[in-house]
Amino acid sequence: MGFWKSLFTGSNAATKGSRAGDAGLLDSRLIEVLPFQGENGSRLYFSMERQIDLYELEELCDAVGWSRRPLRKVKKAIAHSFLVITLWEELGNRRRLIGFSRATSDHAFNATIWDVVVSPKYQGKGLGKSLMKQMIKKLRAEDISNITLFADPQVVSFYQTLGFVVDPEGIKGMFWYPE
Amino acid sequence: MGFWKSLFTGSNAATKGSRAGDAGLLDSRLIEVLPFQGENGSRLYFSMERQIDLYELEELCDAVGWSRRPLRKVKKAIAHSFLVITLWEELGNRRRLIGFSRATSDHAFNATIWDVVVSPKYQGKGLGKSLMKQMIKKLRAEDISNITLFADPQVVSFYQTLGFVVDPEGIKGMFWYPE
Repeated sequence: MGFWKSLFTGSNAATKGSRAGDAGLLDSRLIEVLPFQGENGSRLYFSMERQIDLYELEELCDAVGWSRRPLRKVKKAIAHSFLVITLWEELGNRRRLIGFSRATSDHAFNATIWDVVVSPKYQGKGLGKSLMKQMIKKLRAEDISNITLFADPQVVSFYQTLGFVVDPEGIKGMFWYPE
Repeated sequence: MGFWKSLFTGSNAATKGSRAGDAGLLDSRLIEVLPFQGENGSRLYFSMERQIDLYELEELCDAVGWSRRPLRKVKKAIAHSFLVITLWEELGNRRRLIGFSRATSDHAFNATIWDVVVSPKYQGKGLGKSLMKQMIKKLRAEDISNITLFADPQVVSFYQTLGFVVDPEGIKGMFWYPE
């Protein structure tokens, strides 16, 4: 896998534009190759692969201004998420992580979507919407009827365009803070 | 365990006032015996045991007017919850499920509490508050920093007394509905 280190073995390699093995990078957990191309004819695709270089994910989250989190905990959170969908740009035998989302779930009734991110360079092309549609599709395919999330004010309208409703029937999202 | 059937083997026995084995019912996952007694000198205690008779749980949820759910899915949801806390009334070698709560989680950052229920007969005694405090305590002990829930309008003030905040920093709880 060249520089492409496993999430579960950890890596401190620089990963942007990592080089992959012989067979190209489209992994076995591929879900959709997007019908349009990125820069230089690159290919964009969604995957459920969890073999994510944590440093590459951190770089992606840094780019959208999120607070840094301990990689040890990020690794644990990914391992214990019900669903992880990643968005990749692939050019030749190089690929780059350009989007990420995950959901926790009880595998039966409820799922909650966390950490939806698309690289700023790739925003405004509908990729965030496509990513969320993939999340919804997969959760529905698993017979999850209650898909929830907590939206920052600036992304509420984005989620509304996808069919998410704020406070349906007066149900309120609440967060616990130490008393 | 007499009539007391395992969640994982399933049971269709009537369970109210189920009889237990020889050694009393306090299980190995006991977390706290409450300092006051129920009716007839019964003992009330919290447990993390998941060996719940699904029919007894259904009876509890029926009593508070919840919609019925397939027991197959309830079983799966319990098995895939990060935390389950149950509240029991024990008298002699009989015990009854009188409260329940569970949380999904990524085991690292976020937890979401679902299905908080206390039997109507036992409401108004602070047991719901104690149950939630046990949930919070256990989640904090697991280093979960973000404890969330979705509250129906009539219980928002209840959760506020426990330190939960509605829409902090404008963050909105959202639910997906088919477009």
